[in-house]
Amino acid sequence: MPQPSLRIDIDRLMARIDALAGVGSIEGGGVCRLALTEEDKTGRDLVVSLMRHLGLDVSIDRIGNVVGVRPGMEDGAPVMTGSHLDTVRTGGRYDGALGVLAGLEVVATLNDAGIDTRRSLAVAFFTNEEGARFAPDMMGSMVHQGHLPLEQALETTGLDQTTVREDLAKIGYLGHAPCGSVRAHSFVELHVEQGPVLERDDITIGAVEGVQGISWTEISIIGESNHAGTTPMSARKDAGYAAVCIARFARRLAEQMEGNQVATVGRLQLSPDVINVIPGRASLTIDLRNTDAGLLRRAEQRLHSYVRRIGKREDVYVAHRSLARYDPVVFAPSVIAMVERQATALGLSVRRLPSGAGHDAQAFAPNCPTGMIFVPSVGGVSHNVKEHTAPRDIEAGANVLLNVLLELAG
Amino acid sequence: MPQPSLRIDIDRLMARIDALAGVGSIEGGGVCRLALTEEDKTGRDLVVSLMRHLGLDVSIDRIGNVVGVRPGMEDGAPVMTGSHLDTVRTGGRYDGALGVLAGLEVVATLNDAGIDTRRSLAVAFFTNEEGARFAPDMMGSMVHQGHLPLEQALETTGLDQTTVREDLAKIGYLGHAPCGSVRAHSFVELHVEQGPVLERDDITIGAVEGVQGISWTEISIIGESNHAGTTPMSARKDAGYAAVCIARFARRLAEQMEGNQVATVGRLQLSPDVINVIPGRASLTIDLRNTDAGLLRRAEQRLHSYVRRIGKREDVYVAHRSLARYDPVVFAPSVIAMVERQATALGLSVRRLPSGAGHDAQAFAPNCPTGMIFVPSVGGVSHNVKEHTAPRDIEAGANVLLNVLLELAG
Repeated sequence: MPQPSLRIDIDRLMARIDALAGVGSIEGGGVCRLALTEEDKTGRDLVVSLMRHLGLDVSIDRIGNVVGVRPGMEDGAPVMTGSHLDTVRTGGRYDGALGVLAGLEVVATLNDAGIDTRRSLAVAFFTNEEGARFAPDMMGSMVHQGHLPLEQALETTGLDQTTVREDLAKIGYLGHAPCGSVRAHSFVELHVEQGPVLERDDITIGAVEGVQGISWTEISIIGESNHAGTTPMSARKDAGYAAVCIARFARRLAEQMEGNQVATVGRLQLSPDVINVIPGRASLTIDLRNTDAGLLRRAEQRLHSYVRRIGKREDVYVAHRSLARYDPVVFAPSVIAMVERQATALGLSVRRLPSGAGHDAQAFAPNCPTGMIFVPSVGGVSHNVKEHTAPRDIEAGANVLLNVLLELAG
Repeated sequence: MPQPSLRIDIDRLMARIDALAGVGSIEGGGVCRLALTEEDKTGRDLVVSLMRHLGLDVSIDRIGNVVGVRPGMEDGAPVMTGSHLDTVRTGGRYDGALGVLAGLEVVATLNDAGIDTRRSLAVAFFTNEEGARFAPDMMGSMVHQGHLPLEQALETTGLDQTTVREDLAKIGYLGHAPCGSVRAHSFVELHVEQGPVLERDDITIGAVEGVQGISWTEISIIGESNHAGTTPMSARKDAGYAAVCIARFARRLAEQMEGNQVATVGRLQLSPDVINVIPGRASLTIDLRNTDAGLLRRAEQRLHSYVRRIGKREDVYVAHRSLARYDPVVFAPSVIAMVERQATALGLSVRRLPSGAGHDAQAFAPNCPTGMIFVPSVGGVSHNVKEHTAPRDIEAGANVLLNVLLELAG
């Protein structure tokens, strides 16, 4: 039963966040713990040993998701929390790690207070949420909740030309448990906002209403590589120039569309990438997001139509393929309201907001009552070594998580 | 003395071109023999052994240039020909190699005919003409002719973070001869046109009037890497977008300037180069060329001014530095006329034209009578595995080279 005075131990939680941030730490205070690398393995090992130390029943599934269960007084599906341990190449120390370690801090708090819950509790971390080495992102949670076939995920080839299956085996996390064998009664994820809204409005807790729809497109262009000095401008089939035009169009699209449309060209590569050679090949990625499903589709259509036009105009061959696509997600009104109520009960300021980023929680949303708790990101900075959230906000978020999980677990 | 009936042996020359093209051969019939790599070493070794086989007196200088001298009847500076053996990453089999092997074919022809010349003849190949691994390009010939200090060239760090000195030593071509110790009485280089003019006008021989001025600029941009989903468009400091705008400006500049202005963005890199991260850093190179020195300067000024404006507009830090710069070069009227005369005497069609590409010959132009002979490039294609010149055009060019060298050597 919930204890009105029960609180997480912020010093213990911060110490564990610091320890995990030491795995794959990079200059500037950031972390590079790309999915299924040696750093990911070390981070996973650290968290698994903490789970075992806390008495959880740990299972590893076939896509490398790890779930630790704290049995309740009754049988049945556990109330689940969790997030991911992988980061982008120049990531921060809170993105993902906070949700996992705060979940374990809730377990530690309940252990210390000798509290048994009616329903079981589970803390999970999911494979390759970031998608920085393997597309799509949220791979582990999507397989867990049945949105992505296991075999397809395992056969995915990444940036380093290895497959997910190979790399999982290499780091010792190609588990045996069937994916989704631990079903969730409900799912709540604590995460840093990664955007500027909470800090700007001086709000401590975000009750997340849902997630923007996301569309990732990879565009490949084949022109003709030729000499930079001797080829008249009119005779060029410059794959690089076509890529540049498409990248510029993406910005214009974001400025013209409604619905908080954003567009990002994160990758752009030329080949042969030599000063005095007109690029014969180019590739780039476009990340489109919108809270409105119809507007997101329209943005994709406009992009595809522009890509076709530029191919004709520049006399280059252009192909596009979808690397990942998620419709906008709506979280359970009951969980959103619960986050608001528990935050208010703790005397914390709270507001509803959508998530601009994709999260593991969205894989659960169609299958069980699901919600998220956001805490402020200083300057809205994330996917950057400077990512920061104040310890008092982390404490507030973890206490809201504690109370929401207790209410759900009964 | 010139023999009216003296002709080079095209079968022997083509066989040697084929053999050299086998060193560093890549798919599609092309060659990757980047300067100072293992492939470059193997190619150099092959040509040096051919030089020795032909009885030339071979010397290697401190920047790795190799000169083979065929002594004449009189003392004094030799009439020199030559070119380079290095290629771009996806290069063709004629660019550079033709000039070196045709020079050696002239020597072989004279040897077979038992002809002694009044002046000595020299065939040279120069280090790192392409500049694909180390900037600037034409490094060896520029050092040879006193336009670039030896120490500065040796200390140059390349794409692989090694210095020219280290890589020369590694492949065994850090020679002992002082650079330029073999001075040239005159210099003539046979090369493929690498552009479409001769083929388009159905002309066999180009009498090259000079070389376009070349300006290489590297632009580095520092913005702020951040999350692609949560960062509003208005709050971005997107280094990649600034790079894309600059690349697009380069094309506009080429279209607006006169004097056959060309502009090429051959390299463009984003960092961290991840789909869902706004690039915090970007770099690109711009290759500007113009036959008019004043117009080339104006193009550079307009580029610099735009770079400053984009830095302010996108709130990113932008720096630019010159990687290489050559004013337009004018070849000796006497040599240009000699090429025309000898081509006509052989019954070949000939026209004057400028070179769009930089060549080793331009390093010699300020110091001695210098000229170049062009032969047609099919489709104007070069710096590409599909680079091709018909054997009968190669034969024509090599015979013009033979007769021009004989006229100069007396």
